[in-house]
Amino acid sequence: MRPEPFECPQEPVVLGLSGGRDSVALLRMLALHGVPMQACHVHHGIRGQEADEDAQFCRELCRQFNVTLAEYRVDVPSKAEQSGESLETTARRERRRILVEHALNEGFRAVALAHHADDQAETVLFNLARGSAGLRGMQPRRREGDITWLRPMLGMRRAAITAWLREIGQDWREDATNADLAASVRNRLRLRVLPALSEAMDRDVVPALLRGARLQGEVCAALEAALQVMPLTDPQGRLYLPFLADKPVELCSAALLHYMRRCGVPNLSEACVSEVYSILSADAAKSCCNLPGGFRARRAHKRLVIEAIGSQM
Amino acid sequence: MRPEPFECPQEPVVLGLSGGRDSVALLRMLALHGVPMQACHVHHGIRGQEADEDAQFCRELCRQFNVTLAEYRVDVPSKAEQSGESLETTARRERRRILVEHALNEGFRAVALAHHADDQAETVLFNLARGSAGLRGMQPRRREGDITWLRPMLGMRRAAITAWLREIGQDWREDATNADLAASVRNRLRLRVLPALSEAMDRDVVPALLRGARLQGEVCAALEAALQVMPLTDPQGRLYLPFLADKPVELCSAALLHYMRRCGVPNLSEACVSEVYSILSADAAKSCCNLPGGFRARRAHKRLVIEAIGSQM
Repeated sequence: MRPEPFECPQEPVVLGLSGGRDSVALLRMLALHGVPMQACHVHHGIRGQEADEDAQFCRELCRQFNVTLAEYRVDVPSKAEQSGESLETTARRERRRILVEHALNEGFRAVALAHHADDQAETVLFNLARGSAGLRGMQPRRREGDITWLRPMLGMRRAAITAWLREIGQDWREDATNADLAASVRNRLRLRVLPALSEAMDRDVVPALLRGARLQGEVCAALEAALQVMPLTDPQGRLYLPFLADKPVELCSAALLHYMRRCGVPNLSEACVSEVYSILSADAAKSCCNLPGGFRARRAHKRLVIEAIGSQM
Repeated sequence: MRPEPFECPQEPVVLGLSGGRDSVALLRMLALHGVPMQACHVHHGIRGQEADEDAQFCRELCRQFNVTLAEYRVDVPSKAEQSGESLETTARRERRRILVEHALNEGFRAVALAHHADDQAETVLFNLARGSAGLRGMQPRRREGDITWLRPMLGMRRAAITAWLREIGQDWREDATNADLAASVRNRLRLRVLPALSEAMDRDVVPALLRGARLQGEVCAALEAALQVMPLTDPQGRLYLPFLADKPVELCSAALLHYMRRCGVPNLSEACVSEVYSILSADAAKSCCNLPGGFRARRAHKRLVIEAIGSQM
């Protein structure tokens, strides 16, 4: 039985193809739905002959389904040494960079990734355990610059994908996914923590994690929509402070974050929002502060002005 | 060194005292801060002689610090058998019932519980793994009917509490807390899952879990404040539907939930909010639906009316 739900791309895609179960399943589904695609395989320069065999597997699969395959090679170990980051982080960043570059060069606007519901649960737990605000996890469709990242299988369970591939007699490279990163944080979460959590709760916790993430996503979306509706700015588009004067600090902080993001300020941290909050009041000691990305926040005439440093009036 | 932060109660409290580390520490801190209190010990009828020794320990501790001790006995196993719930759930419910009854009988308005930061992290994980929306965890101060539940140690780490008790030479009953419930979900989370998660993440995950919970709490608070500010209702206090007509579904659902709660509708589930959402549009097949607690939602003249069933105009 074909696993559900498949959020079928409505546009041509570049598919990130490792040769592992998930990306092989995604290729088969995209082919089944007649989605125009190219596949892109990145050789990480890590696993020697096995990695060569992964590439060979991808070549045969793509030939069989008449999909153009682009192959790239990147020396992850030496890049990781340069950057001081883990192999996993480096591999992921390089893979994403290559996928975007390839897509843009070939005239595609979308890249499809094979993340599924169990990956999503793992991401939710990972984000929670990092204390990140991004509990809501990965999005099925996310725009980033000129590229849209698509995750058509984000609602599918891993077991359903595996069962389907077996049913249709499609094999995959067992080691191609992540076995080379067996010691990584994500793999420990997948192989040890999620099973322990399910055992402790006496049930499969993946649906619960997804539900929690969805609920939090809905609260964030509702807040975002509410901020859009509220009269936060004056007709010139500057944040109008008297409106915030009698509001709880949580709403003020959310409004500041929303407003500064809209002004294009990047990398806004909690500390940064909190510093801007401290200059809002008319009797605050300071009336301006610096922001990331070369911006500055300045209180003037009951407004908050966000300006590029150097553009002071 | 005394563990921080202690949110000192500003009113007389009844303290739930098991004789375990956490409640013993709370008694010592309340005494140190001169908070007027009575202690209340509940014997669960589970652990035989050990439980008797716990009660004896509480008696001596209270005598030493001149605290009035009330002792109650409840037959948790037979209550659990009647209700079909677990020993843990039953014990917790009975303990809370007894604490509230005792407090009200003795003229107290507040009950202090000894939950700390590690308990909070466990609760956050537990809620997430249940798919509950209540990721934000326990509140340091929560009103429930005539009683306010206080958790003055919610910001303290377990290790700091233990270290302080050792420092001041105060012992406690090692088994009094939860050892009799060693097979429980919560204990499996505490003893297996949280350590596995910390190991996988290569750091102590408790602060991260608390941060995640706090951030989600702030988003919820910001949304609640935004809903208070928005012109959701007409001058008669009925939900004014044209305002919601062009808003995203997440904001509409949040507004419905907020409004129905304000009208006193209890136990609002996601399915229930979603059913009410389906009657909002003028061309919906139905214009009313039943709600929990004997309420009904009815669309009339571009308003949503919440009324007790039987009180139809």
